[in-house]
Amino acid sequence: MRIALLGYGTVGSGIGRIVETHDLGIEIAKILCLPKECDEPRKTSSYDEILAEPDLDVIVEAMGGQEPAHTFIMQALERGISVVTANKAVVAAHLGEFVGAAKASGAGLYVEASCGGGIPWLASIAKVKRIDAIDSFSGILNGTTNFIIDQMKKNDEDFSEALSRAQELGYAERDPSADIDGIDVANKCIITASLAFGCDCIRDLPVFGIRNLTAADLAHYAYEGYGVKLLARGICRDGRYAVAVEPVLVPSDSLEANVPDNFNIATLEGATVGPLKFYGQGAGSLPTGNACVQDLLDCRDGNQLTFDLDPSITYDPELLTGDYVIRTTAAFPQGGTAFGIGSKRYKGLTADAAHKLMRTIVADDPSAFMACIPTTL
Amino acid sequence: MRIALLGYGTVGSGIGRIVETHDLGIEIAKILCLPKECDEPRKTSSYDEILAEPDLDVIVEAMGGQEPAHTFIMQALERGISVVTANKAVVAAHLGEFVGAAKASGAGLYVEASCGGGIPWLASIAKVKRIDAIDSFSGILNGTTNFIIDQMKKNDEDFSEALSRAQELGYAERDPSADIDGIDVANKCIITASLAFGCDCIRDLPVFGIRNLTAADLAHYAYEGYGVKLLARGICRDGRYAVAVEPVLVPSDSLEANVPDNFNIATLEGATVGPLKFYGQGAGSLPTGNACVQDLLDCRDGNQLTFDLDPSITYDPELLTGDYVIRTTAAFPQGGTAFGIGSKRYKGLTADAAHKLMRTIVADDPSAFMACIPTTL
Repeated sequence: MRIALLGYGTVGSGIGRIVETHDLGIEIAKILCLPKECDEPRKTSSYDEILAEPDLDVIVEAMGGQEPAHTFIMQALERGISVVTANKAVVAAHLGEFVGAAKASGAGLYVEASCGGGIPWLASIAKVKRIDAIDSFSGILNGTTNFIIDQMKKNDEDFSEALSRAQELGYAERDPSADIDGIDVANKCIITASLAFGCDCIRDLPVFGIRNLTAADLAHYAYEGYGVKLLARGICRDGRYAVAVEPVLVPSDSLEANVPDNFNIATLEGATVGPLKFYGQGAGSLPTGNACVQDLLDCRDGNQLTFDLDPSITYDPELLTGDYVIRTTAAFPQGGTAFGIGSKRYKGLTADAAHKLMRTIVADDPSAFMACIPTTL
Repeated sequence: MRIALLGYGTVGSGIGRIVETHDLGIEIAKILCLPKECDEPRKTSSYDEILAEPDLDVIVEAMGGQEPAHTFIMQALERGISVVTANKAVVAAHLGEFVGAAKASGAGLYVEASCGGGIPWLASIAKVKRIDAIDSFSGILNGTTNFIIDQMKKNDEDFSEALSRAQELGYAERDPSADIDGIDVANKCIITASLAFGCDCIRDLPVFGIRNLTAADLAHYAYEGYGVKLLARGICRDGRYAVAVEPVLVPSDSLEANVPDNFNIATLEGATVGPLKFYGQGAGSLPTGNACVQDLLDCRDGNQLTFDLDPSITYDPELLTGDYVIRTTAAFPQGGTAFGIGSKRYKGLTADAAHKLMRTIVADDPSAFMACIPTTL
């Protein structure tokens, strides 16, 4: 199998290392990189040269970001060249377009590495769906924020200290917004829901991050018997679905509350198999590279995920409701009951309604925080 | 796909219910049962009649036990009929014979349901092995004992009370020995090691169960920062392997310590993918039935696990060492340091040596208990 790698950063070099140290029958024929990095014959800065390469089986996009990844993926798929990608941002934004192009040309589209890094999450969803409809999913799908929360808890330190350590260790970017504001998780939530429910998942789902989480919040939740985790959640029932990304209070003795460091865990629920959980490294050069290489082997064997993206499966925010604990120094909304000092608990809100409420509150108090206590899921 | 079911108990009826309520293209052509249960045309008490059934694709053995399951499986495989089985006892005892017969005739052998019920544990091992050698595994692979320990912890009750509740709920047999003495886990450990390491796993591995666990032990371990779980463990390095089944002290904030009710969790470690954990229902009619039906779909698609059983991979007990905490009213062995009242901790024993020591102690004090604090794994 002859492949081309687009990008040789964290993910690309992980793929390179795995392919070169294992006898998998995979040959890296071309590598797209910056002109100044073209230090061996396989490396080129011209995508046209890669597209012109004869007998190329797969193009592996490991550049990240929207453009030129989006254009390069489309050009490959339109030419009938299968694509493996670890790029959750571009997949979440353009899934329908990619799926359409792949179907039209007969190319394969492989996105396992875009959700959950080395965890076989999407493949497991697809396998479960051979028998069960998937009723719901939830997951810690961002290792950076799990690491920050875990450090805050273990060291009783505040958000900014834990974030700095995450940045020192390379777990968080210099601009950490995509992680701590839940954008990265939202992309994975969109991809997961699209596969699990077969819906054309909305892009503007309710998303609230952990930027405002404090050590005092953590101590308060722990006293009430909870840990807090940034979760992606989805539910599907009778042809309708709902999704949300938000801090969730999970029982202190749950598996989720005890996921350490930068690990991920994701749960699905099938009617006959029951709940299944999958835990592992959700990021990193070798785990994510491993997921890409698994996709390459699946491509070789003709095993491919099927995205249906049925537009008749409609978004219904009423499906995802819970109690919401809000901490603010601004005026509290009407209703609610006391939940420790400075917080109130609001019963039975949809994620949609709670997030709208929170946007008003944050306008007055930019440090306000919110977490869900799920009731439907 | 036309199949025959051998047995229509817990697992067989689960398969029947899934096949009949899902459009999977699977037809149950024959069901082997007792003469008095033959109340419909598909049911027969004659295995010869099943073997004579034309166009049978798969025989699903869901009877349990050694005989006649062993003979029936061999007769099917020798005739080139693929076999799906959930029967860990017969698979662990006769794996090499089954693998040989399947290879000779070209039939398929599918055993996913024998380890971890609905959890895709063996399939995940096989998938990881496409890239990584598996260095080690560990797992809570028996829901009955996890339920008993969880009940003892939650209700602060003694072993016999928790066992009675497990029996009332149908989680434990009237004779619970196979579960509580670790025999069931040992079978799953043998099958897991055979697949993960490609070894012809020894049958007389070190096995110690939880029959003697007391509420006081649990309280004592919790005070020291541990929970206790009955774990199967295996390690493989440089063509040698070791396996053991025993109570293990796991940190109170580990995922393992927080696995509730009758759930299972299993962990593997691969060089590039890192640790992966798989959690779900390890038993029960629908989850185990689901695993069997997944095997049927894999059989249809030509996906099969490969057991190599390489006899040159040798058993080396030195690979699996740890500290052992022993509680007894009999004389303690030489050495050891105090570990709470009535217990001593012995450093750096192999599982083999610790279990031998324990057999001597139990001869004097039949209520003695032992748990491992792993150091190598």
